[in-house]
Amino acid sequence: MNVSILFGGASYEHEISIISAITLKDKLSALDLNFIFLDQDHTFYLIKADKMDAKTFSDGSYKKAPKLSMQKGGFFKKGRFGSSQVACDRVLNLIHGADGEDGTLAALFDFYEIDYIGPRKDASVVSFDKFMTKAYASVCGIDTVSYEVLNGERKSSIDYPFIIKPTRLGSSIGVSIVKNADELDYALDVAYEFDDRLLIEPFIKGVKEYNVAGCMTREGLELSIIEEPNKEEFLDFEKKYMDFSRTEQVSKADISDELKAALYAAFEKIYTPLFVGALIRCDFFVVEGKVLLNEINPIPGSMANYLFSDFTELITRMRMPKRKEIKIEYAYLHSIRSAKGK
Amino acid sequence: MNVSILFGGASYEHEISIISAITLKDKLSALDLNFIFLDQDHTFYLIKADKMDAKTFSDGSYKKAPKLSMQKGGFFKKGRFGSSQVACDRVLNLIHGADGEDGTLAALFDFYEIDYIGPRKDASVVSFDKFMTKAYASVCGIDTVSYEVLNGERKSSIDYPFIIKPTRLGSSIGVSIVKNADELDYALDVAYEFDDRLLIEPFIKGVKEYNVAGCMTREGLELSIIEEPNKEEFLDFEKKYMDFSRTEQVSKADISDELKAALYAAFEKIYTPLFVGALIRCDFFVVEGKVLLNEINPIPGSMANYLFSDFTELITRMRMPKRKEIKIEYAYLHSIRSAKGK
Repeated sequence: MNVSILFGGASYEHEISIISAITLKDKLSALDLNFIFLDQDHTFYLIKADKMDAKTFSDGSYKKAPKLSMQKGGFFKKGRFGSSQVACDRVLNLIHGADGEDGTLAALFDFYEIDYIGPRKDASVVSFDKFMTKAYASVCGIDTVSYEVLNGERKSSIDYPFIIKPTRLGSSIGVSIVKNADELDYALDVAYEFDDRLLIEPFIKGVKEYNVAGCMTREGLELSIIEEPNKEEFLDFEKKYMDFSRTEQVSKADISDELKAALYAAFEKIYTPLFVGALIRCDFFVVEGKVLLNEINPIPGSMANYLFSDFTELITRMRMPKRKEIKIEYAYLHSIRSAKGK
Repeated sequence: MNVSILFGGASYEHEISIISAITLKDKLSALDLNFIFLDQDHTFYLIKADKMDAKTFSDGSYKKAPKLSMQKGGFFKKGRFGSSQVACDRVLNLIHGADGEDGTLAALFDFYEIDYIGPRKDASVVSFDKFMTKAYASVCGIDTVSYEVLNGERKSSIDYPFIIKPTRLGSSIGVSIVKNADELDYALDVAYEFDDRLLIEPFIKGVKEYNVAGCMTREGLELSIIEEPNKEEFLDFEKKYMDFSRTEQVSKADISDELKAALYAAFEKIYTPLFVGALIRCDFFVVEGKVLLNEINPIPGSMANYLFSDFTELITRMRMPKRKEIKIEYAYLHSIRSAKGK
């Protein structure tokens, strides 16, 4: 099976996507891999495996690689004698943040009928917008941390300390913990810089966090071990970067069978059927014994490979959602024409 | 200004989109127009103005028209001596239902930096999914009819009569009014045929309905007259079709200044800023003096031209949202390389 790893994108997480791709190049070396880079100007390039290092991108030498265009059924390389299709059974969408996780590329893949691992458009919008995540969790019957939405307002009814988040950016960009009124104005300015709608949540000190990843395979929903991440107050951008190059399998969280079952059940409710086609990681909080969904990562850093013992094999067994076939028969236009006699 | 009317799409509303386009051909005849047809297989065709009739599509003769491809900056026609760009200052997205209103084409236009009139991706997902519409309305501080979501369940706690709707289809497809328990099973079967998630709402007999359309122009938010549509129990598919060929300006609803102000205020809260770039129609209910959002039509039939006195001129004055520029400097990759000394 040929898997084309797509990375880069016009996103604040462009560089961590490159790190993710370099990490997966080694992790998935048993597969037949291609590397497709999307630069900040939305041009696709086919990168040779031996050029998959930081230098190729930071010094701009990727621009010498062949350009690709996306057309029906796949990616095409222009040659002297017409264009040729790049071998690709399945794209692995590894573009974190905008383009990859906001549903843009999902829409392109679906439109051009290209098989891909990654969240579909609707799943992307639900996980990319923190308010939508909360609304979706509530329909699935999963609790989240209480919250307030600010549409340009500059005060909150939630007690200090609280967290301010732009509704639509990942990787902690624009996020602040506000401890008192003196810190509020600056935190609001920073957050409104990135989004016109903010989410305020009470800051819960020492909250227990657990991560679970999983995906639908031909055999059914397969879940990872549960990890209790080593958390600082919250991960800043630099620390998150380091997180995207992880490959060593982590050890299981030391939790009761009851909590384990509750976390897996919550994951399943969130995942099915909206996220079929993607390998996602859900980050949960546990507060007073109750499982709360914190975040859905529909394209987790290096695909959360470190949570699975058989990662490569899992990728090849993933199940894709069925395409909806719409057959247009022009029954209505025919009936208009017969009525009009022309 | 050249406006390219894009219509068709792989959607259950494919045929009404053709009707909408034929209607706007006359209505917008003062503009320099192109007609781009998207067929059910996702191929684009450039249709000549004199071929814009039902026959061209129902007998398949559109297939003789030149094929177009979407690339950075616009649509391109392949010729004997390379490809040439089709003149187009702005696309008018007139694809109702899937492809047009679900955010797929919005994602393509944004990705390829093509200027377009129509809802952006996030706005599309919010208006296309009836549950998301309710969640969004609640953040905007606008009420909606009470509801329940069914995820595969086959019973509701809402009293009869109620309405069952698939969460993600327009044009009344799969919608039933259920008057008693005998009718429930069949209505559920029909609705689940189209979606795996359903919305149940109490059926409010004789509810007052009012429609308002509007868009952001260079001058600010411009609103249409308020129409009280002539409603049957609900519009079935055939009646909705007729609705898509309207061009005569309708008369204003006879309502109090207070209600008028309340409807306009609700429209503005829903519209700004999520729907900038689109001309939308909001359908409101008024129950016991309270304004409830029923539906957002982000690409209304024939663009609700019949609600405006200066429709053509309005289209040319519409304001488009700013593109976000993301500039990638590779600061992080540079810092890794200096740390590693290579």
